[in-house]
Amino acid sequence: MFLGAGELGQEQIMEAQRLGIETVAVDRYKNAPGQRLADRHYVINMRDGKLLREVIEKEDPDVIIPEIEAISLDTLFDLEKEGFYIVPSAKATHTAMQRKRLRELISKEAEVLTSKYVYANTNDPDSVRAACEKVGYPCVVKAIQSSSGLGSMDVHSPKDVDEAIAKAKKEARGSGEEVIIEEFIKFDTEVTELAVRHFDDSGKIVTTFPNALGHAQIEGDYHSSWMGMNVAEYLPRNPENTRDMNDELAYKAQKRIYETTKKITDVLGGRSIFGCELFVKADGTDAVVYGNEVACRPHDTGLVTLQSHMNTLSEFGLHIRAVCGFPIPGEKNDDGFRVLKPVANAASHVILSPYDGHEVSYKGLWDCMGMEGVSLKIFGKPEAHVGRRMGVVVATAPTVLEAKRKAEIAAHKIMMKAGDNPWKGQTEMETRKHVVYGAKRQ
Amino acid sequence: MFLGAGELGQEQIMEAQRLGIETVAVDRYKNAPGQRLADRHYVINMRDGKLLREVIEKEDPDVIIPEIEAISLDTLFDLEKEGFYIVPSAKATHTAMQRKRLRELISKEAEVLTSKYVYANTNDPDSVRAACEKVGYPCVVKAIQSSSGLGSMDVHSPKDVDEAIAKAKKEARGSGEEVIIEEFIKFDTEVTELAVRHFDDSGKIVTTFPNALGHAQIEGDYHSSWMGMNVAEYLPRNPENTRDMNDELAYKAQKRIYETTKKITDVLGGRSIFGCELFVKADGTDAVVYGNEVACRPHDTGLVTLQSHMNTLSEFGLHIRAVCGFPIPGEKNDDGFRVLKPVANAASHVILSPYDGHEVSYKGLWDCMGMEGVSLKIFGKPEAHVGRRMGVVVATAPTVLEAKRKAEIAAHKIMMKAGDNPWKGQTEMETRKHVVYGAKRQ
Repeated sequence: MFLGAGELGQEQIMEAQRLGIETVAVDRYKNAPGQRLADRHYVINMRDGKLLREVIEKEDPDVIIPEIEAISLDTLFDLEKEGFYIVPSAKATHTAMQRKRLRELISKEAEVLTSKYVYANTNDPDSVRAACEKVGYPCVVKAIQSSSGLGSMDVHSPKDVDEAIAKAKKEARGSGEEVIIEEFIKFDTEVTELAVRHFDDSGKIVTTFPNALGHAQIEGDYHSSWMGMNVAEYLPRNPENTRDMNDELAYKAQKRIYETTKKITDVLGGRSIFGCELFVKADGTDAVVYGNEVACRPHDTGLVTLQSHMNTLSEFGLHIRAVCGFPIPGEKNDDGFRVLKPVANAASHVILSPYDGHEVSYKGLWDCMGMEGVSLKIFGKPEAHVGRRMGVVVATAPTVLEAKRKAEIAAHKIMMKAGDNPWKGQTEMETRKHVVYGAKRQ
Repeated sequence: MFLGAGELGQEQIMEAQRLGIETVAVDRYKNAPGQRLADRHYVINMRDGKLLREVIEKEDPDVIIPEIEAISLDTLFDLEKEGFYIVPSAKATHTAMQRKRLRELISKEAEVLTSKYVYANTNDPDSVRAACEKVGYPCVVKAIQSSSGLGSMDVHSPKDVDEAIAKAKKEARGSGEEVIIEEFIKFDTEVTELAVRHFDDSGKIVTTFPNALGHAQIEGDYHSSWMGMNVAEYLPRNPENTRDMNDELAYKAQKRIYETTKKITDVLGGRSIFGCELFVKADGTDAVVYGNEVACRPHDTGLVTLQSHMNTLSEFGLHIRAVCGFPIPGEKNDDGFRVLKPVANAASHVILSPYDGHEVSYKGLWDCMGMEGVSLKIFGKPEAHVGRRMGVVVATAPTVLEAKRKAEIAAHKIMMKAGDNPWKGQTEMETRKHVVYGAKRQ
């Protein structure tokens, strides 16, 4: 049973169906992408513990996969005590949704390096200002209860603080009272490591690692991601930028990424894929890795694995295998990490709605899908909001950079309208951090 | 709308859903593999033209994809006249289901070489015997109206004729009155070429060809298939078996396969994937290709494309792209054929039920899925029959032969039971034509 059945749930449901597994999709709105495929579906407000319990007791699922955050966590804790299997566990799900708990877990329990941080209360703006001073400008003010970049703002000077407080209050889940003020780390690369914890032949839980994937966010939300066979293509480069030194640095960075991810996911525990967001900073020929956030489920940026990995071994296939207790292929590398290498260089790029509204139409599909190595996924969401993710392009190419370019160009070919609006593409929206469209503007 | 929604329909529905396309699955039984995923589904007897028309008029689909043969073809012809889009056309669907029409089309309209053949009537056994004499022993007696090896038997001498007649009558769709007696060609390899006819940039229909795939049948039914990046691995080998000569022969054979497939699919017309079954015979360094059968839809043996080709460009993805008018990548080779090369060497192997019954259970999944490069698909059919296809393994490996071995070993690890029967694997069933299990027996 999937609690939340968006585009990530949809791909998981496909992988489950391919194994003959019965699926139930629960979401807050009708015709959510995953609901369309599941054997059965329910539309309920999952914050309502009574309703959630009713559906779970009725279906009596073997596995419960929480996909979104608007879920009554108390009910999950209760159900887990009663013997239901929550992926990876009610506690881990709870922790990953709470920035404060997560930060404590990463820095104190897992003993992983993080940015400096201080908590403050938005009802006392002076406490926020004082915290920013303490951490130093620029810093990031983030609502404790939130995700996907919501309720979060970069603060460059004291005069940004009021705006950051307003944003936290407006966009947080809950009151937005509590915020975390984080040091702005001057990292070289931001990556997601998709570690999967699963049973091995002896029934012990082991961790398998695909390569680190790179990603670009806009307004704190995933916009593009990439994964390659040679991480030296996108992990930090040596200032001297010679081939050998880059290879060595990338190797070291990848090793530190595995180490850091292992520490964090071991503390969270259970069987699941984990999307560990990390900052990577070159330090000579070695790398320093900071823990940032972690999701106990397939990660948005991992959509790239639909093409970088073998069919059925995308992050969605891996998650289904892990939670159902099936094996996952992989082999030990020289450092003793069990790895699952990509089979292609690939990149993903989101398709965002330029409109609010229903009756969403798309055009430009011919031009997008006609590009060699491009695969298009339209989520089929019944309602659009400005900036809502409505689809994604995943592209393969001989190099990661070419894949990034190709995915970006292909995604920007899609035009949308809602109702009677004129056609509009996302090219007219934000194009910072783009390889091609961003460059054109500058 | 899919008329018939088995395992092939299921994968097509996934590809359609990934493009945000609404899907309706119609089948004769509840919980058919594709029905579980479709937006809506119906359980009806599609031979009943009135019921079929009711469902189609109610849903008013943009595209109607006939998947199985138990459909009222008269109704499809009528609906096509009224403006419904039948894939690839009512006529082609009709032709492909009738051995007699198909044979005439292949040999007379497409002017493709076929085995010698004569028609006869099973109510007049002497006519069948006379036809066998004329064609010569060994020959094949096949019911005109049938598919998947049903109603078909190899006849080695006059004393086999009565059994062949009984088989045709028993297993044919309809009366099994009319049979075709075919010459038994001593071919070197049997292949399926999955040609896809689709729009190009100018709106013209063009044909794109994945590599030829090899397959082994048991009792005339698909049992294993394979596709590789270098067809010299499995297309006919030169008697002297030197590398250069094999490469040249394979190149020529592949060229003849493209030529032959093009002729056949051009006569059938429309936009669709076509599974052209061909016999290939080496002739010095050139090859002779005979037309055998053709399906106007994804082919059983093409399940191998789930791993041999990029995700979303399997035969299922190609079919959805073609019928919906989306582009298909490909590039012209030196002979002017538009080709879509595989990205991996892969092989498929079916999982057959050793039992009749409901409440089917599977075990051995861990051992099967634990093999590197193996992907397992359990169709989730609610009812088993002895020899019914319940799942498939698709495996990738450095060579086609290794992939064949791996798929076979992995598929034979799955054990099944229906109700309270003891566990049983297909290893205890027919293992002729197997790479590993067959060899063990001999």
